Amino acid sequence: MAMAIKSNRFVHLCFLFFVVSTVLLQTTDGRSWKKRPLRQPCRNLVLYFHDVLYNGKNAGNATSTLVGAPQGANLTLLSGKDNQFGDLAVFDDPITLDNNFHSPPVGRAQGFYFYDMKNTFSAWLGFTFVLNSTDHKGTITFGGADPILTKYRDISVVGGTGDFLMTRGIATVNTDSYEGDVYFRLRVNITLYECY
Amino acid sequence: MAMAIKSNRFVHLCFLFFVVSTVLLQTTDGRSWKKRPLRQPCRNLVLYFHDVLYNGKNAGNATSTLVGAPQGANLTLLSGKDNQFGDLAVFDDPITLDNNFHSPPVGRAQGFYFYDMKNTFSAWLGFTFVLNSTDHKGTITFGGADPILTKYRDISVVGGTGDFLMTRGIATVNTDSYEGDVYFRLRVNITLYECY
Amino acid sequence: MAMAIKSNRFVHLCFLFFVVSTVLLQTTDGRSWKKRPLRQPCRNLVLYFHDVLYNGKNAGNATSTLVGAPQGANLTLLSGKDNQFGDLAVFDDPITLDNNFHSPPVGRAQGFYFYDMKNTFSAWLGFTFVLNSTDHKGTITFGGADPILTKYRDISVVGGTGDFLMTRGIATVNTDSYEGDVYFRLRVNITLYECY
Repeated sequence: MAMAIKSNRFVHLCFLFFVVSTVLLQTTDGRSWKKRPLRQPCRNLVLYFHDVLYNGKNAGNATSTLVGAPQGANLTLLSGKDNQFGDLAVFDDPITLDNNFHSPPVGRAQGFYFYDMKNTFSAWLGFTFVLNSTDHKGTITFGGADPILTKYRDISVVGGTGDFLMTRGIATVNTDSYEGDVYFRLRVNITLYECY
Repeated sequence: MAMAIKSNRFVHLCFLFFVVSTVLLQTTDGRSWKKRPLRQPCRNLVLYFHDVLYNGKNAGNATSTLVGAPQGANLTLLSGKDNQFGDLAVFDDPITLDNNFHSPPVGRAQGFYFYDMKNTFSAWLGFTFVLNSTDHKGTITFGGADPILTKYRDISVVGGTGDFLMTRGIATVNTDSYEGDVYFRLRVNITLYECY
Repeated sequence: MAMAIKSNRFVHLCFLFFVVSTVLLQTTDGRSWKKRPLRQPCRNLVLYFHDVLYNGKNAGNATSTLVGAPQGANLTLLSGKDNQFGDLAVFDDPITLDNNFHSPPVGRAQGFYFYDMKNTFSAWLGFTFVLNSTDHKGTITFGGADPILTKYRDISVVGGTGDFLMTRGIATVNTDSYEGDVYFRLRVNITLYECY
């Protein structure tokens, strides 16, 4: 009798265990969930990059240049019309660990942006951080809308290589400083959720 | 003797359980699979966006403009030559819940497209849905080839922010309407497989 | 007494089992790990694509064309100045299984690239492989920096459709051949880690 009870208890234990494991599996895999729980971020980086736009006179210092614009615009100055709608720039900007343009760069931000709204100042960015420092070797690729006048803008991290192989996450961008149409500095707070 | 049998049974039960769990783990994790089972979509959205291309006369209404083209082309009209190969447009198009251009927009489709084939009519799209309605706040970023003459085209969803944090999936696009080179409307059926 | 020992043993076994399963769950899910183990690649493809840049005379054969450039440059020849910084090309290149330009194409590489450094020869690529062969039907979309003078460059695979639904991974690119500014051939070794 005592034996039977004990054996029943074990069966119950095992059954309970099975149920718990199954639930855990479903929770962690998410197959039975509409929305999956967000895991903890696996990495966080805060970096700055500095854009000096070519204006016809600063060929030596410029780190970006207009390469496309709507009909009637020229390529040496952002058109004041329509919030620069359509102006397309290619850039190769230094990345620094702090907000000092003269700090030793830890990599380059390479890509393009274009102004994409007629009635306000807004952009779209596609670019890659090419990092080559003691701490980080690899690339992170970003894409998304950048509503410049909003203080903090979220842009998608869509991939990476090297130390950032196949990473995903979010970059929260804010304009740390700007000087007219010639210079701007973006602070980029990168939160990664997938690290391999 | 009875004890021995019972204890053997428990050992078998536990072994069986272990095997079952291991198989489940492998199935759900996919590490031992070449191909992983596709989980159920976690969200589906059907949205429309409307593109009015600047043609030199409609500056007020236009929502997109050419900003690049091959040598010899101008930027006010799509060149009839070579299926517009190389013509590059930047857009900021209203997104609506139905196919009516005058419906209240729930967001903006912001990005660029270019015509990318000489012998047929085909494009490549990179853009972001910036949604700001009662139902959805956040962005979804898309990229991929758009063979316009195919009725339904699949484009990759490569990332998102806000309500669509790090989302992934597929957008099935079809041309719902067009008027010459000036207007087109795309119906976008978005199926998301990763929601956080 | 013997019973008690046995029952203890079972409890221990079950406890051990629970611990092992939990650890396995955490390992496979990664929630308690900063870095997740990389699973085995699920697919590997080696493909070549061929780019013939329009130079003002080869309209018939050209598979790509400049559509944007900095002020002062023209769109028929890459500017010799500043390592072509800012020159933007749109392409529709044939993809082949081997390095022979005349092999039957298995698809098209469609997208854009631009030269993005002033002091060296470097580019940024955004493109999609549109595959339509017996073996593969679907698209793979890529994005990232391409430091051309490096022998092997890694570019992110950010999405896909059809046979490559939502795929992710890495493309290792090397310049297999080039002829001045008119022709280059890239060998692309695609390693995919997510296959559905």
